[in-house]
Amino acid sequence: MAVLKVHGAVLSTASMRVFACLYEKDLDFQFVPIDMKAGQHKSETFLSLNPFGQIPAVEVGDQKLFESRAITQYIAEEYADKGTQLTCPGKPLAPLFVWKEVEAHQFDPVASKLIWELVYKPMYGTTTDPAVVEENEAKLGKVLDIYEARLAQSKYLACDCFTLADMHHLPGLHYLMGTPVKKLFDSRPHVSAWAANISSRPAWSKVVAMQKQ
Amino acid sequence: MAVLKVHGAVLSTASMRVFACLYEKDLDFQFVPIDMKAGQHKSETFLSLNPFGQIPAVEVGDQKLFESRAITQYIAEEYADKGTQLTCPGKPLAPLFVWKEVEAHQFDPVASKLIWELVYKPMYGTTTDPAVVEENEAKLGKVLDIYEARLAQSKYLACDCFTLADMHHLPGLHYLMGTPVKKLFDSRPHVSAWAANISSRPAWSKVVAMQKQ
Repeated sequence: MAVLKVHGAVLSTASMRVFACLYEKDLDFQFVPIDMKAGQHKSETFLSLNPFGQIPAVEVGDQKLFESRAITQYIAEEYADKGTQLTCPGKPLAPLFVWKEVEAHQFDPVASKLIWELVYKPMYGTTTDPAVVEENEAKLGKVLDIYEARLAQSKYLACDCFTLADMHHLPGLHYLMGTPVKKLFDSRPHVSAWAANISSRPAWSKVVAMQKQ
Repeated sequence: MAVLKVHGAVLSTASMRVFACLYEKDLDFQFVPIDMKAGQHKSETFLSLNPFGQIPAVEVGDQKLFESRAITQYIAEEYADKGTQLTCPGKPLAPLFVWKEVEAHQFDPVASKLIWELVYKPMYGTTTDPAVVEENEAKLGKVLDIYEARLAQSKYLACDCFTLADMHHLPGLHYLMGTPVKKLFDSRPHVSAWAANISSRPAWSKVVAMQKQ
């Protein structure tokens, strides 16, 4: 089997999404750390992997992939018979498609703004904007109300098993749970149980452990 | 076959994406216009179709779908043997996954901001913000430079045939081509030829015709 190389960074949410997928699929991979502070993601070498200059980028054989959700979909389909299934085999197709898009277009834009303000800005020594936090907390609350209703009916977002739709949330949940935004999850019992459940997966622990090395 | 009902609006880019897919697949559907000015997308009836209160929403049999790209993926897979293929059968999986995500995360956020400023704001009688236009024109130019390089190598974005990755751009292209942003396409020969080619598809003409009824 061709070596799968991931060019990324252990603190990047998009890279973490891909690491989670690889651990769930029990696949060996080679991690190539990209030093973003040194601007390595804008180097000619990196741009030959991803012309948009964003991490992560994946090489496998002669294929080059970028965009974290494209990479996870590729891994889930190409290695369908390895590790966790990550799809809903034998179930209607629609819910998985819908909830993957909900993560990408409803949850992630709001979660990313909050993580930027509450995690990355303090990490880089710049100042959090409380107005942006307040606006996006209100938006996230509305999104999580809809998740609460969904998760009252279904153990996981797409079907009764853990899929890409759940997994794609893990990096965002990980960071937000270390901020005051945690209250928005805690106050919604089904969301809270779902977040605790998916965050306790052994594959996810391995992603978090990469940050401590 | 179950009747496919699309709840949407002829001027909405996300609805147009779904109409394009249905016409490419040569599928009959029932169009249920949603009057957004009257707030119909926030009505209880509509929220039972899409709890996020956004158009379009699709009903087919007892399945309910929302998020335009989830709907098109569903249609492409569920009706794989009808009309245009819209995927790259027999080709490597990765490029279609990658270029679908590029449209959603690189092209669309920038295109949507420009369309909001240059098309919808004038339509609703509010004032365009030239700073937002300038900033997003610069961003779009950089995205289109990468498209130009890709389309110099490949007739379509994902492979040598028209796929969902191309099709998802059509509503954005349609609106931007009627604004000064057109110059960013015209100045890049491969992008310009691709945009003209995919916009001339008979299925797309039917979507545009819906706006003139």
